[in-house]
Amino acid sequence: MTPVRPVIMCGGSGTRLWPLSRKSRPKHLLPLLGGRSLLQDTATRLKSGMAGLDILPPLVITGAAQADAVADQLMEAGINPAALLIEPEGRNTAAVAAAAVAWSEMEGDNALLLLLPSDHHIARPDAFAEAVAHGVALADASLIVTFGVVPDRPHTGYGYIRRGKAQGAGFAVERFVEKPDAETASAYLAEGGYSWNAGIFLFDPAVMAAELGTHAPGIADAVRSAVVAARREGNRVDLDPVSFSNAPSAPIDKAVMEKTAKAAVIPVDMGWSDVGSWSSLFEVLGKDEGGNAVSGPSRVIDCRSTQVRSTGPMTAVVGVEGVSVIVTDDAVLVIANECSEDVRKVIDGLNEGEAKDLL
Amino acid sequence: MTPVRPVIMCGGSGTRLWPLSRKSRPKHLLPLLGGRSLLQDTATRLKSGMAGLDILPPLVITGAAQADAVADQLMEAGINPAALLIEPEGRNTAAVAAAAVAWSEMEGDNALLLLLPSDHHIARPDAFAEAVAHGVALADASLIVTFGVVPDRPHTGYGYIRRGKAQGAGFAVERFVEKPDAETASAYLAEGGYSWNAGIFLFDPAVMAAELGTHAPGIADAVRSAVVAARREGNRVDLDPVSFSNAPSAPIDKAVMEKTAKAAVIPVDMGWSDVGSWSSLFEVLGKDEGGNAVSGPSRVIDCRSTQVRSTGPMTAVVGVEGVSVIVTDDAVLVIANECSEDVRKVIDGLNEGEAKDLL
Repeated sequence: MTPVRPVIMCGGSGTRLWPLSRKSRPKHLLPLLGGRSLLQDTATRLKSGMAGLDILPPLVITGAAQADAVADQLMEAGINPAALLIEPEGRNTAAVAAAAVAWSEMEGDNALLLLLPSDHHIARPDAFAEAVAHGVALADASLIVTFGVVPDRPHTGYGYIRRGKAQGAGFAVERFVEKPDAETASAYLAEGGYSWNAGIFLFDPAVMAAELGTHAPGIADAVRSAVVAARREGNRVDLDPVSFSNAPSAPIDKAVMEKTAKAAVIPVDMGWSDVGSWSSLFEVLGKDEGGNAVSGPSRVIDCRSTQVRSTGPMTAVVGVEGVSVIVTDDAVLVIANECSEDVRKVIDGLNEGEAKDLL
Repeated sequence: MTPVRPVIMCGGSGTRLWPLSRKSRPKHLLPLLGGRSLLQDTATRLKSGMAGLDILPPLVITGAAQADAVADQLMEAGINPAALLIEPEGRNTAAVAAAAVAWSEMEGDNALLLLLPSDHHIARPDAFAEAVAHGVALADASLIVTFGVVPDRPHTGYGYIRRGKAQGAGFAVERFVEKPDAETASAYLAEGGYSWNAGIFLFDPAVMAAELGTHAPGIADAVRSAVVAARREGNRVDLDPVSFSNAPSAPIDKAVMEKTAKAAVIPVDMGWSDVGSWSSLFEVLGKDEGGNAVSGPSRVIDCRSTQVRSTGPMTAVVGVEGVSVIVTDDAVLVIANECSEDVRKVIDGLNEGEAKDLL
C-alpha cells in the first residue's frame, strides 16, 4: 500500500477551553483526556499495520511560540517527526497544506499526506485506520479524500459535506455546506447523505499542488517560496517570514475543497469529537455513577452530569446539575453545559478589560 | 432610662460559610455585607438616643485565638469596649452570660446587659432599638427578655418561642421549642404566636445571676471564679483557665431560659438574619437586575439568582441559576442555593481527609 505521512496541524489556542487553555497553553498541548495531550494522542493514533496501513513519521506544523513545547511533547511520546515546520505566523489551513506539499516536493517524498488537526479526539482509532486505508485507494486515483463524520444529532457548530455518487469505498463530494442553523441541520440529519466536516484530508501531494496552483495560486506560490527559503536546523524548518507573510489566509475547505472537482468523502463512524468546548469534552470523558467527570483536588457531593476539573485549589461542588466547574491557579469558570459556547463572551470581556494576562 | 450595656459574643467559626470562613477567620470578622465586618456592624448598630436608649460601651467576649483580631476591628470601628473578656476555650452561651454577670457584679456596673451574637445582620436597626427600649421596662421589672423574630416562612433551622399572655410591650414566654421539622414549622406559622429565637437577651445582671444560681449553679460558680481570678491588663480580662474549665458547656436557652419563670418575649420585625449559610447571606445582599449578587474580580453572564464572591482569582460564571460560587485563594465552592446547609458535608470530608489546613 502507498505509504501515508500524517501532517499534524498544531495551530490555534482553543479559547473555548478557557481557563485551562491559554494563548501560551493551547488546547492540543493539554492532557484533557488522561495523562497524554491531544497532540500526543494524535501523533500515536495511527500505527503501521493497522488496516494494512504503512504510516511514516509525521510532518508537524506549528507556530514559533509553541515549537519547543510541541517538540518536547513529541519526544516524550516517542515520536521523531520527519520535520517540524515552523510558521512565523498563523495563515490558516490552506497555507499549512501548501507548506506540506512544498516540503514533500522538495524532499522527493513519495508518500500520501494525511492532513489532520492535532486537537481532536477519536475514540475508535481502528475505524479511523480502516477509513484511511480505504482512502489510500481513492488518493492513489488522484482524488482528495475527506473523512466525513457520521452525524448523530443536528449539530450547528460544524460544516457539513453532502455526498454524491459512489466512488470506490467512498463518494464524490456533491457540495460542502457552511455551519447550518438548527432547522437546516435537522433537515440534513433527516435527509441522510450528510457528514460533518472534520477537517481531515488525504491526498497525493502532486494532486494537491496542482489544485492549489489552479484555485489558490497566491497561497501556493508564497508558501513554496517560504519553504524553499526556510532556515533548517536538524529536522526543524523555519519557514521564511517575508515570503510566508505574502500568503493569503484561508481554510483549505474554501481555498480548494469547495472548488476542486477531485473531492471525495469517506463517511466514518469513529467516535470523533473536536473537543471544541467544555460540554464537548464532557461528552467523551468517563463518568462516575452520578454521571459526573471529576479530576484534580475536589469534593463532588449530590451532583449530576457535572464536570469538575481543578489544576489549582481544592474545589467543592454541591447539589448542582449540568454544570462544568473549571479551576486553575489564576481563574475559575462555572458554566452551564448547554451554554458552553458562551465562554467566548468571557474571553471577549477579558479582551476588553484589565485582565488580558488571563487569556 | 436604665442604661444598657451590649455584651457581644464573638465565638464560633461559622463553618457554614466555608471556604471564606475558617477556624482562623471566623464569620463575624468577615466583611460579608460591605466594607465592615459583622462584628463591626453589631458593635455600632445601637447608639444612645435611638428610641431614647442609653447605650454604654460594650463588653466583648471572645476566645484567645481571636482576641487580637477582635480588638483591632473594634478599634478600627471607633469602639472602645468596657472590657474584652477572653475565654481560654469555648463553653457555649450560658458561660458567656455568667461571665458578663460576674464582671458586672465585680465592677459594680448598674447597667442592664444586652447579650447578643456578633455575627447576625439586622436590616432595620431602628426597629431593633425600639424593641430594646420596650425591653428595658420589662428587664427593669426583673424579667429576662428575649427578642423574638417574626417568622416569614416555616424555617426549620431555628428554635421557636411560643408567646403566652401579654406582659407590658411583650409577652410571657409559654415555651421554647427546638428546631422543628417542616410540618411542625408550617403549623407554627399558620397558628401564629411563635417567634424565631434569635439568641438576643436583655436582663438585669442580678436577676440573671440569681437564675443561673438556681438553674445552673455549676456554670455560675466556675465562671465567677474564673472572672475573679482573671489576669487583667488594660481592658483585657483573661479568664482563669483552670476555673473556667470546670464550667459545664450549655446554651443559655437550655441552662436558664427553658427553666426560668421570668422569661419574656418581645416579637420584632427587624430584618434579622443569622447569616448562617450562603443562601441566607444571599437573601440579604443587594442584587443586580438579574437577581445576582456579585463581588470581587468576576464576569457574570446570563445568570439568575446567583451569588458570586471571589477574594481570589478571576471568576467567570455563565448561564447558571440559583447557585453560589465562592472563591478564595486556596479553595472554591460551587453550591446550589437550596443545598447551602450541605456545606457541612464538605467540611466533614475535609476533616476526614488530607486537606485539614483548609478548615
